[in-house]
Parts: sequence; C-alpha cells; structure tokens
Amino acid sequence: MKAYNLGPGWLAKFSVLTLLILVVLNLAVTTEARARIRHYQWKVDYLYFSPDCVEKVIIAINGQYPGPPIRARVGDTIVVELENGLPTEDVVIHWHGIHQVGTPWYDGTAFVSQCPINPGETFKYKFVVSRPGTYFYHGHFGMQRSAGFYGSLIVDLEQGEKEPYAYDGELSIILNDWWHRSMYDQETGLFSIPFRFVGEPQSLLIEGRGSYNCSLVPSGSVAGSGDCVNCNSSNPQCQPYILPVEPGKTYRLRITSVASLSSLNFILEGHNMTIVEADGYNVDPVVVENLDVYSGETYSVLFTANQNPSQNYWAAVNVRGRKPATPTGLAVLNYLPNPSSLLPSTPSPVSPVWNDFDYSLNQSKLIVARQGYEVPPPTPDRQLILLTTQNKVNGKIKWGINNVTYVPTSTPVLVALKYGLKKAYDPIPPPDYPTRPFNISSPPPNPNAIVGSGVYKFQFGSVVDVIIQNANMLNPNNSEIHPWHLHGHDFWVLGSGKGIFNPVTDPQGYNLNNPPLKNTVPVFPYGWVALRFRADNPGVWPFHCHVEAHFHMGMGVIFAEGWDRLPQLPKSILGCGLSKYL
Amino acid sequence: MKAYNLGPGWLAKFSVLTLLILVVLNLAVTTEARARIRHYQWKVDYLYFSPDCVEKVIIAINGQYPGPPIRARVGDTIVVELENGLPTEDVVIHWHGIHQVGTPWYDGTAFVSQCPINPGETFKYKFVVSRPGTYFYHGHFGMQRSAGFYGSLIVDLEQGEKEPYAYDGELSIILNDWWHRSMYDQETGLFSIPFRFVGEPQSLLIEGRGSYNCSLVPSGSVAGSGDCVNCNSSNPQCQPYILPVEPGKTYRLRITSVASLSSLNFILEGHNMTIVEADGYNVDPVVVENLDVYSGETYSVLFTANQNPSQNYWAAVNVRGRKPATPTGLAVLNYLPNPSSLLPSTPSPVSPVWNDFDYSLNQSKLIVARQGYEVPPPTPDRQLILLTTQNKVNGKIKWGINNVTYVPTSTPVLVALKYGLKKAYDPIPPPDYPTRPFNISSPPPNPNAIVGSGVYKFQFGSVVDVIIQNANMLNPNNSEIHPWHLHGHDFWVLGSGKGIFNPVTDPQGYNLNNPPLKNTVPVFPYGWVALRFRADNPGVWPFHCHVEAHFHMGMGVIFAEGWDRLPQLPKSILGCGLSKYL
Repeated sequence: MKAYNLGPGWLAKFSVLTLLILVVLNLAVTTEARARIRHYQWKVDYLYFSPDCVEKVIIAINGQYPGPPIRARVGDTIVVELENGLPTEDVVIHWHGIHQVGTPWYDGTAFVSQCPINPGETFKYKFVVSRPGTYFYHGHFGMQRSAGFYGSLIVDLEQGEKEPYAYDGELSIILNDWWHRSMYDQETGLFSIPFRFVGEPQSLLIEGRGSYNCSLVPSGSVAGSGDCVNCNSSNPQCQPYILPVEPGKTYRLRITSVASLSSLNFILEGHNMTIVEADGYNVDPVVVENLDVYSGETYSVLFTANQNPSQNYWAAVNVRGRKPATPTGLAVLNYLPNPSSLLPSTPSPVSPVWNDFDYSLNQSKLIVARQGYEVPPPTPDRQLILLTTQNKVNGKIKWGINNVTYVPTSTPVLVALKYGLKKAYDPIPPPDYPTRPFNISSPPPNPNAIVGSGVYKFQFGSVVDVIIQNANMLNPNNSEIHPWHLHGHDFWVLGSGKGIFNPVTDPQGYNLNNPPLKNTVPVFPYGWVALRFRADNPGVWPFHCHVEAHFHMGMGVIFAEGWDRLPQLPKSILGCGLSKYL
Repeated sequence: MKAYNLGPGWLAKFSVLTLLILVVLNLAVTTEARARIRHYQWKVDYLYFSPDCVEKVIIAINGQYPGPPIRARVGDTIVVELENGLPTEDVVIHWHGIHQVGTPWYDGTAFVSQCPINPGETFKYKFVVSRPGTYFYHGHFGMQRSAGFYGSLIVDLEQGEKEPYAYDGELSIILNDWWHRSMYDQETGLFSIPFRFVGEPQSLLIEGRGSYNCSLVPSGSVAGSGDCVNCNSSNPQCQPYILPVEPGKTYRLRITSVASLSSLNFILEGHNMTIVEADGYNVDPVVVENLDVYSGETYSVLFTANQNPSQNYWAAVNVRGRKPATPTGLAVLNYLPNPSSLLPSTPSPVSPVWNDFDYSLNQSKLIVARQGYEVPPPTPDRQLILLTTQNKVNGKIKWGINNVTYVPTSTPVLVALKYGLKKAYDPIPPPDYPTRPFNISSPPPNPNAIVGSGVYKFQFGSVVDVIIQNANMLNPNNSEIHPWHLHGHDFWVLGSGKGIFNPVTDPQGYNLNNPPLKNTVPVFPYGWVALRFRADNPGVWPFHCHVEAHFHMGMGVIFAEGWDRLPQLPKSILGCGLSKYL
C-alpha cells in the first residue's frame, strides 16, 4: 500500500481552499436563487410521429413531441440556441405570453420581430421571464404550430413567494387538435381557388396524444406507396397521457390550448375544477364542471382526487363552437396505486352542446381578477374598433380587419420601423374604425378587401382601447369564435356583448373594478369584446386571431410603440428582404 | 355621319411619324435579332396537381407544371424575377447546363452560390446564355426538384446559323419519376434511424403526365381526412402528353431527364431515333432503337414519322439500372390527322432488361463529338480520384466522397471564399485521393465517414482530371448508377471502365480524339468514369450525383476557381449565415 505524503501544512492549505470553494459555491447558490440563466440547445428536425396512431411528419425539437418543456423562475434569463435542421424551411419560435420587455427582437414572429431562421443556422433567443404563470412556445411562421412545433413554458414565483392557493402536486397538459393532412396541404387549400378549408380535425390530443380509429383507414394500399396513411393503434406514441394522482390530494393542473382551429372544452370526469389562474394572472376562484379553453389561452385549475379511488377517470377534451366531427380526446386520471393501464369503463365525457354560446360567454365572464390582485385599468387615450370580416381578395377567401387583410412583409416590421425602411411596409396605417357601413348579421354586400401590412402606431405609454367586432362570414348564418392574442402585453378584458358594439352605451357597462388581465380572449359569434392595454413596451407586436388558418388567411394587425427608444437591433435578426441592404 | 377634319398638312405629319416609327421598329428588330433580354416574372407557389391522377401538393411556377419553358437565342440575356410565394420554404433555381460565366452568383444553388430566397422575397436572376442546346432549370435546395419544381430551357443558334442536321419540326419532353409521398416525407425518411429509402417511384412521367392505376388505391377513406390519396383517372392533368407529327416528316425531339432517382430508357414505338445532341453539343449521329437517359442529361434525337399513318404510337419510358417496380410511363405519338385520343392498341413498349449494364455502357460509349465539332482536350494539371461510397455518420446512412459526406454550409461558399469568411466552411480541403485502402466489390469494412463542406480549389485556368470510382454499397452485391453533374462547366468524357481505375494503364485508353463534352455523365456499378475540364470559370461549382436522394445524403463536392477575380458580389445573394454580418 502506498502512503500518501501530503507534506507539511496540507491541512492549512486544504482549509483555505475549502473555504474559498464554499464561498464561491455560496455566492453561486445565492445568485441562482435570485435569477439564473436557463440554457437550452435545441435542434428542429422533421420526425415521423404518430400522435393519434397515424404516422405523420411533424416538426420536432430534439426529437421530442411536444417540444422540451421550459421551467424557470421569475427573473431568470432563458437562452435558447435554436438550430434549424429542416432541409428547406425557415423557422422561428414565439414565446407566448412573455412580454419581451427590452428584447422585442426575440419575440419570435417571422417578418415582424425577426427574419426567419434559415436552414442550417443557429439563432440565439435570450430573454427574461418577468412574470410567473403558465405560458408556452410555438412556431410562428406559416402554419408550423399545427405541425407539432410547440411546447410548454412555465414560470414559477420568486423563491419565497407563494401562490394565494394551496395544492399538493402539479400536473400540466397542452391540448391540441390534429389533422392527417400535412401543413403544406392545408396551407395550399387555404390559398386555392376553389378554396379548401382544413376541415374538422381528425383527432384531439392531450399532451400530444390521441387515438384515431384505425379501422377507418382502408387497407390494401401498395406498400411504401404512401397511398394511405399508416395507422397502428398499439404505437406507444398514441397511448393515452397519464395524469397520476394520489387519492385525497389536491392538484394544480395547468392547461394550455395550442389548437389550430377548435375551441375546446376540458373535463375531468367526476371532478369539479376551481379556476385559479388565467394567462399568468390570479383570478377569482370559480368552480366549474368543465372548462372552455380557446387557442392561445392558459389556465390553472385546482382539483381534489376525492372520488372512488378504486378506479381511474377520463380527462377529456371536446370541440365547442364548431359542429363537432371529431371524437373526444382522452387522457387518464390515474388514481395511484391503480395501474395506469386501467382504463375507465365509463363512456367518454360529454361537453355542453357545441353551439351553446351563452354557456361559453357566461364562463368567460366569470373570469375576473382575484381579490387583492386587481390592477385598475387606466383611462384610454385612443380607441380602435376592429371589424373582423371574411373577405375576398383576387377571388381567394381571406379575413380582413376593417377591410384590410394582413399579408406578411418580407422585411421584419421592427427593422423597417427602427431603420426607417419605408419601402418595406405599407406606410398608410390601417383604419381605426370600420370604413364602410356594415351589418354583422348577414354576409358583406361587397366582400372585397385590400391587402396590407400597415401598422397601428401608438404613442409610447398611451392607453389603447380595442373593440373587436365579430360579424357574419361569407356564408349566411355563419359567424365563428376568434381567440385574439396580443404579443408583448397583457390587456384588461373590460367587457363583451352580443350584436354591434355601441360606443356610447356599452362602455358604461365596462368592468373597471376587477377586469382580468389576459393575453388572449375570444370574441363570440355576432358579438364584440373590449380590451384595454398600455402601449409601454418598445417594439412591434402582432395582434391576431390565434386560429392558425385564420391568421394565415390574414386575420391580424400589427401594433407598434416606442421603437425609436430601442438600441441598435441585433444583427442576427437581419438578412431578409430589405434588411440585407442595411 | 361625322366627317373627320384632319386639318391641313396631316398627311405630311403622318408621313414623318410613320417614318420615325418604322425607323424605331427597325432598330428594335435589328437589336432583337442580335441579342435581347428575355424577361420572365415567376411566382413560386404550392399547387394541388395530379400528374399521375393522384393529387399531391407540388411546387409550381405561375400555376404551371412543368414550369414555364424558357426559349432563347445564343447571346440573349435571361432575366427571371422569381417571387417566392411559399409560406415557410426558401427556394432557388439552378439553370442546368448554363455556365454562368461572369455571373456565378446566379447559378442558383442554395448555400453555394447564394442564400436561398426567403418567403415573400423576389430575387432577380440575370445571365447570358452563351451556347445553343437543350437545357433545363430546377430547384436546387433540399429535394424540391422532386416536388415538381423544374422546367425547360432551350437555347437556339444565333440567327443565320444552322444545325448540322435537318428536320421539319421540333418536339420537347421532360422525363421524370414520381412519388405519392411528399418531399418532406421522403427527406425525413432519408435522415431517420432506421433509414427509410424513398423506394421505387409510383409513376413515370413524360412532360409531367403519367397514369397511376387508381384501382390500387383503397376506397372508403373518410372524406377530407387525407387518410388515402385522391386518385381520379379522368383528371385532365394526367391524360397522356401528345406528340403530334405529320406523316413522312422528320422531327427533332428534345429529351431531358429530371428524374429524382431512376435511370430511364426512352422508346418511340416502331421508330428508330438518331442521337444528334447531348448536353448541348453535337454528337456523331447514332441510330438507336431506344435511348438511355440519366437524370441531368439532355439529348436531341431525330426521327421520321415513317410508320403506318393510320394509327398512333406510344412514346414510352421505363426504369433501368434498378429493379423496376413502376409501370411504363406513356405519351402518344400522334400521327395527324388521327385524333390524339386514338390510343395505340399495342402493349407498352419494353426496354432492355434493367440490369443489362453492358447495354447501357455501350450506348454511353457511342456518344462522341460530331465530326467537325471535336474540341481536343488539353493536357491535365491535376488529377482527382473520387471514391464514392455509401457510409454511416452517427448511425445515419450517407454517401461519401473519399469518405467525406457533404453537408451544406449556412453561408454560401462563394461568399465565404470571396470575403474570406473562414469560419463559414471547412477550411481543410477534402482529399484528392481515397484515404483508405478500398475494395469496391464488397461493403466497406469501416463504413464511417466524416461530414464536411470542404472545397477543392483549383488554380485558375488549370486542367483537372476527375475519376469517379464507383463501389459496393453498405449491402453486399449492390452498386448503383450515379449520374454526376458539374456546374459552370462542361467536361470531356475521356473514358470509363469496369472495376478499379488503374491510373497507369487506363489513361492509355482515353479517347483524346473526339470525346464528347457533357455536363452530366453516369458512372456504372462497380466501374469508373474519367472526366477532364478546364477550371476557367471564376466561381464556386458543385459537382454531385444528380439523384435527388443521393445528393441530399451528401453525395457531392464543391469545386472552386478564380473567385478572387470576381467583383463585389450582389447584395441580393447575401443575408444568411455569416453573410448577414458582412
């Protein structure tokens, strides 16, 4: 055996070294406890995946679907180095609900905040998460979100702070609707004459998992020809998502909808849910038997595993707002120690009838700021009334806002404004009010709209009221739900109603007491919704319908404020359109 | 009736004006006769199309498939303003066979000659066509060519010049192979573990038209679900292409193959063909009963409509070089005034057996420069021996050249070389010779390759010999045809042979007398082919297998010469990778 000769004084040396290490470690721990950098290296690739047992090419991150979750704490800096491994497609990622104060160039909207990331390139997103809550991220280019390009982003309270409600455990799910036709196919149909709509989804997914009935797929296709889809009901990728709970305990369930089209209703079979969070804000606790969730919205609900513990229960999602043609999406609420494979023997839970809009409207109105967490809205400086109509442009069906259909620029609007590239966007701002007399209860007599990339520019710090006025579509007796999402801000939802907004009387009914702050809100058929926000975040911010097909068909506008206050923009966001000539 | 009062002197005024107009017109006509600008405005979009009766999303130009033909005269300037209307995909167009002397930045290869064109952008290609011949254009990014993104480019002799052969009329066709699975699906399979090959095509197309047997597609799919392909045999898009001829007359038929995978054999039922042009050069007239055409090659053949004029005949294309699993592609040689709908009652013409490589090799050797049009090859300054092997990189199947698999850079190599962006590409040139002992008749004992984007740099004006050495693939007893295409140059095909190239004895058999000049040449299984070219075109030029899947799997190299002689590069080609920081 060898004796280690440490020499004289090694103990003293050790002690000093130990002390130094401990001091450094302590500093690190302290710093980490306050704010730390969360670093992610992601590669985007195509991937064969079978979310509902039917194989499809999806857009995946690091081979995962849904994408890797981000979990951070308020004040943390998120760094995502995103490598685009797609052969010919560009990508961006939008961080839905994150305000990007001081970093509007990392908002991740193609041709608004940045040039899309070319194949082979690595782009670094770096931003601070300043508010706790349930958020998510997703592709914001073309209809890439509908190809599975999304994931969860959850921000915890600062260390030592507490939610105003208690729970024993936490669960999180993302809801989605799913098609077998590819994103490219869907995009092509939307821009075709004759128009081909994406149609109702084949499946509804909970945390990326659904189940298509493989017996619907005819057999006999020539092997490898791709003549019919490949459906395999025993594929592990399409087995139900499991929500494990211990009997008697209370859980916080975070629910996000990234749905491409559908308004969804979520049910925990046999369990009431108490809504406690919406879009990152504490809301007055409301007990519901089921929950309407619109694309772009996030909620936290509390529930207690207080049912017969010898069985498992369905977690279920159904379509609302459109005539359903899609089976219920199912996950399993697994009462431990029951096996997760013990499927409930009960039928799929049933949601309220799809066109009971009053039900939805009422639930929507129950969402108000939690007592003690109210943020009083300031008085407005400017009002926009945005009439949303279905239109025609060169014979193609589009959506218009005050008869302007949004088409993306080829230079990011942020770059265009900051550097005065006047040829890069439509210099004429779109109208603040509807420009023609309108009747919301029948198709527009003149459906033609103009295309535009105009920008609503707000005085920095000003307070803006936006009324979204829904209307009849091109077909008679048709009006749809549109969940509107604003980047870079939250807004107070002041009120909503049926029919045409009355600018004199309706504001008298605004909730100025405890309106909820949200980043996404639905406008119901033939109705309106009124929002207010402070334009105090320097940057350029899309405000758009979160239905993937609708935004692709032009249902959005661009808001901007304080761009002149921004420093030089990072060169990494440049390179497309006129920005390559800077 | 009103009498026109033209006033005094109107006749004199008219005469002066007429004279002026005639002078201007005459000038215009004279200028046009010499060299003119051919201006095209193209928009790239997705399009539902049914080339073989199965509907698919293709990449179309101006709503056409194949894309709009370009027809020009030697010395003309082609201007194509290409608008990318795809939602999220970038595009480029390569002008196959055009040398781009002085305009290497318009060669249209993504990440070699330019940054790919972002969605919404319009890129202007502008180049001179300096040689007559049959050429074509196609997407050169990912596998976009296989999505239908191609068209014909024909350059006529200068006014007053004549071909050394006579004909009464001209016809032109592009041959292709066709899959029902999307390009994205194919790309995903090639990069997956386990590997999924694209497999044999479902159809063969002549001028974009084929015919799939719709009875192979199972019925019963849920409407709109996309669960099975939509096949409609009466779709006008998939009716056979018609080649109308008048009895007794002689025709020049231009034949191009843009095939993604297949080597093809073309037959004009009952008619011999005389090969007169290959890749834009006059070749010694050779009479054949059928013609092997490899992807990337173009030919002109003469044939006389000298058969029984009371019937029509098949023009047919079959797969060679791979075990066929695809029905014959058929067009109709329509003897006027027979109706074009009069289909031949004869069975589909049969090509030589697929693996009779000697047949192909012999036909290949018949192609030599036409008497009086020989261009003697200079003596070489440098020799490359490029061993082409199937390899593995991180478990994925790739192709390697001297054990280096090509991966595209994210900065165009032309930009990297010109501006000395040393981080933008692999600074170590790939090896001139195979780096390991090799045995072409069995799978490589060590299949691993490295990835690289290295560049073979040639002294400007030097003469380079390239020997492509084919070998066994990863599976025993497998070796395939690879048609190699060089950008920016034509090369002399000096010789070819079976087995391992012998650098001492084989050059003694080179044809230095009348070797053909080509831009694409096949190397046969377990064989080699020897080329020579002069590196006298300043720019950066891919040299690669023209099989779409093979190039996508890394089967190519980059050649470069004289980049330091180029002026400033156009800013329009910049914006991606490190080129955004210039």
